[in-house]
Amino acid sequence: MNIALIGYGFMGRAHSNAFLQAPRFFETRIRPRLKVVCGRDRARVDQMAAQWGWEETASDWRAVIDRKDIDLVDIAAPNHLHAEIAIAAAQAGKMVLCEKPLANSAEDAERMVEAARPVRNGVWFNYRRVPAVAQARQWIKEGRLGRVFHYRGQYLQGWGIDPTRRPGWKLNRAEAGSGVIGDLLSHSLDLALFLNGPIADLQAWSASFVPGREVEDAAAVMARFQNGSLGTFEATRFATGYQNRNAFEIHGDKGMIGFDLEDMTRLRFFDATAPVDEQGIRNVPVAAPQFWKPGHAIGYEHTFIAAFADFLKAVETGERFRPDFEDGLEVQRLVDRVLVSAR
Amino acid sequence: MNIALIGYGFMGRAHSNAFLQAPRFFETRIRPRLKVVCGRDRARVDQMAAQWGWEETASDWRAVIDRKDIDLVDIAAPNHLHAEIAIAAAQAGKMVLCEKPLANSAEDAERMVEAARPVRNGVWFNYRRVPAVAQARQWIKEGRLGRVFHYRGQYLQGWGIDPTRRPGWKLNRAEAGSGVIGDLLSHSLDLALFLNGPIADLQAWSASFVPGREVEDAAAVMARFQNGSLGTFEATRFATGYQNRNAFEIHGDKGMIGFDLEDMTRLRFFDATAPVDEQGIRNVPVAAPQFWKPGHAIGYEHTFIAAFADFLKAVETGERFRPDFEDGLEVQRLVDRVLVSAR
Amino acid sequence: MNIALIGYGFMGRAHSNAFLQAPRFFETRIRPRLKVVCGRDRARVDQMAAQWGWEETASDWRAVIDRKDIDLVDIAAPNHLHAEIAIAAAQAGKMVLCEKPLANSAEDAERMVEAARPVRNGVWFNYRRVPAVAQARQWIKEGRLGRVFHYRGQYLQGWGIDPTRRPGWKLNRAEAGSGVIGDLLSHSLDLALFLNGPIADLQAWSASFVPGREVEDAAAVMARFQNGSLGTFEATRFATGYQNRNAFEIHGDKGMIGFDLEDMTRLRFFDATAPVDEQGIRNVPVAAPQFWKPGHAIGYEHTFIAAFADFLKAVETGERFRPDFEDGLEVQRLVDRVLVSAR
Amino acid sequence: MNIALIGYGFMGRAHSNAFLQAPRFFETRIRPRLKVVCGRDRARVDQMAAQWGWEETASDWRAVIDRKDIDLVDIAAPNHLHAEIAIAAAQAGKMVLCEKPLANSAEDAERMVEAARPVRNGVWFNYRRVPAVAQARQWIKEGRLGRVFHYRGQYLQGWGIDPTRRPGWKLNRAEAGSGVIGDLLSHSLDLALFLNGPIADLQAWSASFVPGREVEDAAAVMARFQNGSLGTFEATRFATGYQNRNAFEIHGDKGMIGFDLEDMTRLRFFDATAPVDEQGIRNVPVAAPQFWKPGHAIGYEHTFIAAFADFLKAVETGERFRPDFEDGLEVQRLVDRVLVSAR
Repeated sequence: MNIALIGYGFMGRAHSNAFLQAPRFFETRIRPRLKVVCGRDRARVDQMAAQWGWEETASDWRAVIDRKDIDLVDIAAPNHLHAEIAIAAAQAGKMVLCEKPLANSAEDAERMVEAARPVRNGVWFNYRRVPAVAQARQWIKEGRLGRVFHYRGQYLQGWGIDPTRRPGWKLNRAEAGSGVIGDLLSHSLDLALFLNGPIADLQAWSASFVPGREVEDAAAVMARFQNGSLGTFEATRFATGYQNRNAFEIHGDKGMIGFDLEDMTRLRFFDATAPVDEQGIRNVPVAAPQFWKPGHAIGYEHTFIAAFADFLKAVETGERFRPDFEDGLEVQRLVDRVLVSAR
Repeated sequence: MNIALIGYGFMGRAHSNAFLQAPRFFETRIRPRLKVVCGRDRARVDQMAAQWGWEETASDWRAVIDRKDIDLVDIAAPNHLHAEIAIAAAQAGKMVLCEKPLANSAEDAERMVEAARPVRNGVWFNYRRVPAVAQARQWIKEGRLGRVFHYRGQYLQGWGIDPTRRPGWKLNRAEAGSGVIGDLLSHSLDLALFLNGPIADLQAWSASFVPGREVEDAAAVMARFQNGSLGTFEATRFATGYQNRNAFEIHGDKGMIGFDLEDMTRLRFFDATAPVDEQGIRNVPVAAPQFWKPGHAIGYEHTFIAAFADFLKAVETGERFRPDFEDGLEVQRLVDRVLVSAR
Repeated sequence: MNIALIGYGFMGRAHSNAFLQAPRFFETRIRPRLKVVCGRDRARVDQMAAQWGWEETASDWRAVIDRKDIDLVDIAAPNHLHAEIAIAAAQAGKMVLCEKPLANSAEDAERMVEAARPVRNGVWFNYRRVPAVAQARQWIKEGRLGRVFHYRGQYLQGWGIDPTRRPGWKLNRAEAGSGVIGDLLSHSLDLALFLNGPIADLQAWSASFVPGREVEDAAAVMARFQNGSLGTFEATRFATGYQNRNAFEIHGDKGMIGFDLEDMTRLRFFDATAPVDEQGIRNVPVAAPQFWKPGHAIGYEHTFIAAFADFLKAVETGERFRPDFEDGLEVQRLVDRVLVSAR
Repeated sequence: MNIALIGYGFMGRAHSNAFLQAPRFFETRIRPRLKVVCGRDRARVDQMAAQWGWEETASDWRAVIDRKDIDLVDIAAPNHLHAEIAIAAAQAGKMVLCEKPLANSAEDAERMVEAARPVRNGVWFNYRRVPAVAQARQWIKEGRLGRVFHYRGQYLQGWGIDPTRRPGWKLNRAEAGSGVIGDLLSHSLDLALFLNGPIADLQAWSASFVPGREVEDAAAVMARFQNGSLGTFEATRFATGYQNRNAFEIHGDKGMIGFDLEDMTRLRFFDATAPVDEQGIRNVPVAAPQFWKPGHAIGYEHTFIAAFADFLKAVETGERFRPDFEDGLEVQRLVDRVLVSAR
């Protein structure tokens, strides 16, 4: 499987690592090959290739897509380029993986879904593949929470208050599409759909704390899920004290589950069916046996490795890979509703 | 100071204890005297008197208020009685203390404020007097958080899911006025006003999870404070796993403060002005030197003791006691706005 | 029950409070009466009497013991006075309660046990009466831990490093008998005996960090329990960061229990018999229903109240009160062995 | 740099991963090449080679060492083979890396140090390279703890109670040399030497909980460090509830530092020089910028990657690599003293 990577930033590194590491930890007959990395800044692309073992570099993504020897196009470029690249790649018959958010509008995302129908595709909502999150999903499907009353999603970062931090394209509306809503809230919404099902109704507010900022710095959302539960969401880059608190809590009549990315090797679990005097929120260490033995932590990068291993397995078995563009579109539709409501 | 207590339930016990204990721990020249406890259930009133040392019992609160030897009327009866009793007591020239929420409508609360203007009065928003909360307020006034971006209030209980739990008047709309909004959210709103100032705008949703329930089981609120910060609130009796999580987090550009009543002897504090490599959320044990030495925990009842000690001091010095009926009215106005928005 | 209190310091306050509060929260036909408080510093004794409602004051404890109207003598004087006062009181036929450690030597403690045989007696190892500790004991008796492998006791305080702290009699060998071994380790040893049974063998080291200090600042102990488990203990006043960490962990083949006085409303519990994927250390909030509803914390003082309520009940029922002087003697024997081993 | 790996178990995987990943995350001109993996179980060695990209396999480690094209011999075989292989490899002029404990006796370790003097060598005490541990060391060197009073080391695992667990060579005295003392306590002792300097005196107990077990299941140690601090250590495989709690706490007059491998991305830090009302134990997230951005966790494997990157850097710069065989010998001497004292 010859891979072309479009983009060379932080996400490009995370993806490159996943391509290299997935076959180490997961059984697969496919041998991913890091064929070509593509980007406009020649020096940085060269460095990327040297560091991560990409065989070739390129600067024109269209030319890369036209290559016959490329099987998979992986998109780690800024958000506003996702749609165009993904559609072109799909039309060229390539498999496509795309960073989240899938697009800068539901309209674009719909076009992407259409174009990618004939090809295998996926969106990097990597947090579904935290072992603790996967276990939460499994437990919920098994009914361990019973009827759900509350879903509480938070994505709290604090770097927004740092005036020395270089903004980059994430603060540029034309490129990023939105601020925390596309960047952080989209992760929370994806996890909510994954864990608690469709959202029937929502209402949102956003806030900007820095004059002249093009995109929103924070957002709050109230939601009603189709299963009757009440949801709240909060996403911000101004939550001093938190670096990357991607957290959720789900309360049902049989129990509660909580997760926080800053403590990603554990689930918080409350079993309301246990004897009353033994009830308490427990920290359940969640094993990641494909990687290391219990008690030996994995980290951020392993979510990408595991997601890509899923993708390889889907290619081998012919089953649908999740999350795919359709999942990405569902999130995008919610993102759009949030943006409209917040205005 | 001869006290008459109207009510004999859980709150009546908490108040009785405060009347007895305040002079043990705080210096005061006033000797509170537990003169008469009043309620309709003769047996329970008698037991209350025996257990807590009330000198007399009574069943007609109007007669109690008419007594010349009563200085202070303390109201721990169901919500719908607050206004009538408080107004009568104030008109009889008594000092009045009233459980929260102050009333079942802002209209009633306004009448109470008017009637109580000539007399010393207070409302039992006791959580202001958790030492950790008082310290948070002090720090905020000193500017240790800087400009505030986010205020997050939660009041999460889980007893709603217990079908064996006897409902009591708190689930009866006529008596309680509302469900979690008056009962729990009112505490969160009071703390928000206390810590972060006035709320300019809000939007709310509520939910009922039990068919036939008269009052709401849960509520979510988005708010904008006058200081520009974005607020979120959540109150529920269906948060399995939590017993009494009355919590807040406040993020400013200089730091963060967090509190949780389930861990009431501590503040969580993040100092964004510390050297970067030493930054982290710390658990600051907050001393309560009037009670015991550092490291010797106080509990729930001490919030009432300290609040009543404040009241005694205000009586001695002639200064205004806070929170008083005007504070209670501010909360009630927000409660009404939440109820309207949630409909 | 007319009570005479010998001593007026921090412990005298804690005991006075217990005498006053026990009948409020626990059912008893006995009415404790705070008859006389006795001490050498007239001004402080007077203040104590005024603050806590002692009817009389006295300066000669022998005269107090001779009084016919005194039923119970409660000793909260420095350690070196315990034996003499307790023996005299017992010989005068009074009930005796004594602060811990029971004495400054096992020899003294033995004489106290002998003298107090005819009278009802008790020692204030109050931490047995933390609700969480009592629940731990109950669970262990029920076999929820199975066979025990490890017992880990810690009593870590940090005030030793504070040079501005006035030493008081606790740093004086003649009065205190020892340093942390009698003061802190004795608590840990009492809990160990209470929870894990007799200690067969031990080895100890101590340390002094301040030149000229008469008593040890820290101690470490290795122990073998009769049940085959391995024990470790540590007590110190130089554990910067901790105020009052009186903690234990007990590991058995069926589970683990942990407790920390700085988080006294909870037990940490691990159930090794639960399904493997749900195993995790849980924080079990332990209710204290005699006091307040679940979720409403109690604190330090309630351990004394509950212990005294036990004592009242024992008086009423004629059953043995625990911990009594014999329990205190067991601890004292271990303290002596630790002191010998550490030399 | 052509590498030969002797061993193919859990540690062999961790080392292989480090060889592959170090050049991805750290700048180096050296290209490590996974040349040959060697072991007796042909099928497993083949699988190892396939999974991790070893170019060749072998079954005779002597023949491997004789190969001219091998630059580095990495030993991940059972403990009793360390000395023989390492000495032969060093005598053949190879660089040598060896798993811990360095040997099964200080005598063997001394011979290894002698033999390896002419070659670059290292021992895999990988936990020195947890970023949080490295930061603790840095802070201690900078004096942020001041004078140290207490060092508390724990290595607590719980798998010993599981009767279904296959024992493997770690429970075989001839191969493992000892039980938890060589396996777990050696890590704790290495960290203690790294962080708090030499140990002057120690006393130890051990325990076996399973009849017929050849090696000890648990150990407790009291120690005096040369800097005057009092140390305690505990290592066990019977601490139900913990999977891999490799923890330490260090108390000094200026502060406290704590670490736990089960929460490896953070340090607990108490600054005794902060304003009193702000003092509290804080959780400081420790960045690992060579890997990912702050807030993006690393895990167990990264300690090996970082250690090997250090080794590569030492090769490039000619500086001494730490921890090397001499460090391993220091630990081995303590291990021997513990074993003698425990008998």
